[in-house]
Amino acid sequence: MKKIKVGIIGTGRIGKLHAENIAYNIPQAEIKAVADIYADSAREWAHSLGIENVYTDYHDILNDPEIEAVLICSSTNTHAQITVEAANAGKHIFCEKPIDLNIEKIKAAINAVEKAGVKLQVGFNRRFDHNFKKVRDLVLEGKIGEPHIIKITSRDPAPPPAEYVKVSGGIFMDMTIHDFDMARYQSGSEVEEVYVQAAVLVDPAIGEAGDVDTAIITLKFANGALGVIDNSRKAAYGYDQRVEVFGSKGSAAASNDTPTNTVLSTVDGVMSDKPLYFFLERYKQSFVDEMKDFFSAIANNTETPVTAIDGLKPVLIGLAAIKSWKEGRPVKLSEVE
Amino acid sequence: MKKIKVGIIGTGRIGKLHAENIAYNIPQAEIKAVADIYADSAREWAHSLGIENVYTDYHDILNDPEIEAVLICSSTNTHAQITVEAANAGKHIFCEKPIDLNIEKIKAAINAVEKAGVKLQVGFNRRFDHNFKKVRDLVLEGKIGEPHIIKITSRDPAPPPAEYVKVSGGIFMDMTIHDFDMARYQSGSEVEEVYVQAAVLVDPAIGEAGDVDTAIITLKFANGALGVIDNSRKAAYGYDQRVEVFGSKGSAAASNDTPTNTVLSTVDGVMSDKPLYFFLERYKQSFVDEMKDFFSAIANNTETPVTAIDGLKPVLIGLAAIKSWKEGRPVKLSEVE
Amino acid sequence: MKKIKVGIIGTGRIGKLHAENIAYNIPQAEIKAVADIYADSAREWAHSLGIENVYTDYHDILNDPEIEAVLICSSTNTHAQITVEAANAGKHIFCEKPIDLNIEKIKAAINAVEKAGVKLQVGFNRRFDHNFKKVRDLVLEGKIGEPHIIKITSRDPAPPPAEYVKVSGGIFMDMTIHDFDMARYQSGSEVEEVYVQAAVLVDPAIGEAGDVDTAIITLKFANGALGVIDNSRKAAYGYDQRVEVFGSKGSAAASNDTPTNTVLSTVDGVMSDKPLYFFLERYKQSFVDEMKDFFSAIANNTETPVTAIDGLKPVLIGLAAIKSWKEGRPVKLSEVE
Amino acid sequence: MKKIKVGIIGTGRIGKLHAENIAYNIPQAEIKAVADIYADSAREWAHSLGIENVYTDYHDILNDPEIEAVLICSSTNTHAQITVEAANAGKHIFCEKPIDLNIEKIKAAINAVEKAGVKLQVGFNRRFDHNFKKVRDLVLEGKIGEPHIIKITSRDPAPPPAEYVKVSGGIFMDMTIHDFDMARYQSGSEVEEVYVQAAVLVDPAIGEAGDVDTAIITLKFANGALGVIDNSRKAAYGYDQRVEVFGSKGSAAASNDTPTNTVLSTVDGVMSDKPLYFFLERYKQSFVDEMKDFFSAIANNTETPVTAIDGLKPVLIGLAAIKSWKEGRPVKLSEVE
Repeated sequence: MKKIKVGIIGTGRIGKLHAENIAYNIPQAEIKAVADIYADSAREWAHSLGIENVYTDYHDILNDPEIEAVLICSSTNTHAQITVEAANAGKHIFCEKPIDLNIEKIKAAINAVEKAGVKLQVGFNRRFDHNFKKVRDLVLEGKIGEPHIIKITSRDPAPPPAEYVKVSGGIFMDMTIHDFDMARYQSGSEVEEVYVQAAVLVDPAIGEAGDVDTAIITLKFANGALGVIDNSRKAAYGYDQRVEVFGSKGSAAASNDTPTNTVLSTVDGVMSDKPLYFFLERYKQSFVDEMKDFFSAIANNTETPVTAIDGLKPVLIGLAAIKSWKEGRPVKLSEVE
Repeated sequence: MKKIKVGIIGTGRIGKLHAENIAYNIPQAEIKAVADIYADSAREWAHSLGIENVYTDYHDILNDPEIEAVLICSSTNTHAQITVEAANAGKHIFCEKPIDLNIEKIKAAINAVEKAGVKLQVGFNRRFDHNFKKVRDLVLEGKIGEPHIIKITSRDPAPPPAEYVKVSGGIFMDMTIHDFDMARYQSGSEVEEVYVQAAVLVDPAIGEAGDVDTAIITLKFANGALGVIDNSRKAAYGYDQRVEVFGSKGSAAASNDTPTNTVLSTVDGVMSDKPLYFFLERYKQSFVDEMKDFFSAIANNTETPVTAIDGLKPVLIGLAAIKSWKEGRPVKLSEVE
Repeated sequence: MKKIKVGIIGTGRIGKLHAENIAYNIPQAEIKAVADIYADSAREWAHSLGIENVYTDYHDILNDPEIEAVLICSSTNTHAQITVEAANAGKHIFCEKPIDLNIEKIKAAINAVEKAGVKLQVGFNRRFDHNFKKVRDLVLEGKIGEPHIIKITSRDPAPPPAEYVKVSGGIFMDMTIHDFDMARYQSGSEVEEVYVQAAVLVDPAIGEAGDVDTAIITLKFANGALGVIDNSRKAAYGYDQRVEVFGSKGSAAASNDTPTNTVLSTVDGVMSDKPLYFFLERYKQSFVDEMKDFFSAIANNTETPVTAIDGLKPVLIGLAAIKSWKEGRPVKLSEVE
Repeated sequence: MKKIKVGIIGTGRIGKLHAENIAYNIPQAEIKAVADIYADSAREWAHSLGIENVYTDYHDILNDPEIEAVLICSSTNTHAQITVEAANAGKHIFCEKPIDLNIEKIKAAINAVEKAGVKLQVGFNRRFDHNFKKVRDLVLEGKIGEPHIIKITSRDPAPPPAEYVKVSGGIFMDMTIHDFDMARYQSGSEVEEVYVQAAVLVDPAIGEAGDVDTAIITLKFANGALGVIDNSRKAAYGYDQRVEVFGSKGSAAASNDTPTNTVLSTVDGVMSDKPLYFFLERYKQSFVDEMKDFFSAIANNTETPVTAIDGLKPVLIGLAAIKSWKEGRPVKLSEVE
């Protein structure tokens, strides 16, 4: 089997995670090079994984004709630009979410990808989560009939620092964007309208940074279904990630994963484990599976499971959500497109 | 112990239920008379419970000086009028929900009650449900800190006939009104704003009758918390009644009751019981407990647990919900008051 | 409908419970009289239930030709004798468990019942528990195939006083006897061999009283299935009552009932309710249902659901268990019959 | 960091599993060589893992002075002999369970290990399972007080072929041996007496091969606690692996792991996932963790978590179990030692 040669651009937390997942779990791919503006700090780690080339300039990856695919794991504001360049260089692209916060830039990136005829997969890893995928499978098998209500609970274990909030694009672009993708994935339909009720209840500093930390987002889908997402930046008991799809024949619901399923019964009550606290643990297997599917799409020349349009739509919904929040009214997606 | 003499006005399903609960479970009360315009049909049932007097005209109850308390279980459109008359006659009043769909009539009824100095309890029985009460108790004990999000799932097992829908006041007045009460109960705060997204997904006949059968209702509370209710007229698996209160220190959640807790594991999967299908089974114990508390409030001359204002507010929220649904925008309660 | 007139002999905790269940839940029966050697203490309670006659001597009940059925709720050592007398008086009999601890006396009682052609039901109420009955129903429907292993967990919330232990017949006759009945009920087969491992781990005073407080009892059934019961006199978290039947096609398992199904999630963990603590709460509904079935068997002249042989067999198993414990070896039931 | 050089003897299913776990998850170890009498069949696989040397004769591993540790994953009847030779060659040893079925051979192996001063870890991987380890941790933290009852359910998803049964040493040596180890692990005490009730209920061919397929094993521990294991060779719903430790202050219980936690509710019932079907999935993480602890014990020169005595004792219990089954009586461990 010929291995697909890969270059990884950006070796922060998520870049390293993908590199390790490829090294240990994806026999059909091989990381030939990584690039990071702080290349020195990545060198030892890279060599421990058997990665030979560590560049400061990602163009060294794009210029390597042997490299067929790149993973774009750099900071968000560089995603769109690098996507365009990588597409022009004829590389297949795995791009972390979001492609950009600006619709024009996303569209430009998508255009470049389409013109080049390369594959693009966007890093909405939660679609690959075993629980959420099972819910989707049950829906697709018709077990719950026509979907009527999609419910998503998505609460972080701890709020980010206010400094981060300022550059994050806000809760809807930074956190809820995953839920917008999940809503599209589970409903199998497009969001047409968004309404947001939001508040600062967790940390006043978030409010001072111009953002909110608690929100309920109502969605209206093209197929007639309704949706609701509830977000909080802080669930004291850990990372709360649940999905329910309710339809004409029933309901499919996924609850949280826990470290163990042990139950302790004492005079004080019956105690079980809290949800897995951190997204890297909670979604561990999903990060591996999105890579498997990416390289499989390249090897078999099939469509990637999270396409360019899947990268664009959640940003549009996010823009509508921000508008709804600011204007205190339901906003149609057509208003922001 | 002197027993409190009671008269029951209306011997439909709910009137009979209260009568049996009093007869079998409330030693401090005694049903002296029932009244129903179809008295004949109630006679045999009444005698089996040891109730001596069965009247056609409820004024015979109001005119009996020995009767201290009345239960108003007649059709909704008569509640307000009978409440006024009963108050004027000096009777303590348990009135089934809603008092009326018209705010002026409700206020008139409340005025009469206040002037007469009698007690009024409104039949929002779900506050007395063991699960929901436990959630509220946990909130009051401070276990979840400040409430941030109140989530209510409320789905009926089967849609009502379209004929009923036409006279019901619509889903928000007929079904969601219980959830509006639950939202106030669990949040310990008043609803200030309502936004509704609704659809006809279960039965087109409901749409033709001018109503909806599926809805997501977002709420904003005076204390800053957010709320969301999801309703459906048809959950294929039964009566789905859940509540979660999420706050600064954690979450308290109540799931459905089931006939048994038996689990069957076979090659086909792991199967457990569906939720209790019918509201009379699901809320059986709550109907007894609301009666206990009503008679206890009379005996001890304390406030009833569901007061006149608790009867008024959900109707106001319902009016705001209808307005939101019709106008496609968030509606403040101040707009309908 | 003609009501079956009933007399209740013994008005301790269990006699009162049956009386109240009949008064409030069994329209086809009417308690005409109760008898208790301490009749005075029962008088007020009896009148509150509308029971007219309160006797000191139970013969007054047996001599009343209008009374068709008696409930024998007196102390265990009087059950067999009263059963014989009641049978001779032509009364149908509901006898609390056990009929006696002496096999000859039980057989004499059964003989009297058979000769008189009256009905006898023994108070093994747990067969009527919603959870355990559902397990049995699943087994009877063939859902788990042929039963291979019957597992019963039966742990009390708190040990009895040593004084009681001395007169109780010991743990196997007092506590495990219910589990022996459950084992027969769930397996649909007879126990052929018993092996006991037991210890005093909860309270040394129980050991000093000549008994044990912790035991594992292995059973061999005539149909080839195996069984195991684990007992403890003290489960710190409450009354632990579980059953599993495992067979060729799967497993049916019943877990504990809880006061509510509320779950509290905080930084300290995920907490849910302890099992219902007391047998009267845990088995509340079963006590009603065994009465319904008793009176239904009389009204329809059918066999009672817990027959004379069902009263005899658990005592035999209990005797084998005691022999196994004392002699440290497996004991066949044929050795004690 | 200097990597510990490892040789793996035997490249069947379990040898390959350990090799992959070391290659992908244990940075401090490096597999220098594998040996298998069918070396050719292992060559391609070994090279894909970057293992350079593939021998037919395991002595080539023992003779390599660079290799510090060996994993003995060959057929059971060679474990003891290779352990002796590896110890004599000064290698640290990870030996798959059981060391042997013959007590003398086990003791000889242990003697060699002790004389050589090398480390020995036996492959009882279930101690490293996240659920069972959590139960043990809760016990060690004193959360359940003194252990009174240890309950283990251990049921295979499908029976082995009768041919395998004949050479397996029988259910107690092949399957229950893991449960005997678990019983010792969870109780923190030694088994003193065993009683077995067993039957052929799954497959007559197993009976014809001189073995049983269903068993209940009662245990008496030195610390006074009681234990019970129930085994079946076939659980239709999958691999059923549960543990409960019940003590003076409460109970700690671990249930089965499932592929997802998704719940489907329809008119047919509420369905959830079956347990993970295969031991490699169920105990996946435990196999990695036992390796981590083995190499950590070498690196830090500490005791291994599953010692020589832990390899010996379950075999002794197994011999007592076989004797109990054959003689139909409880057997003390002192009888087989």
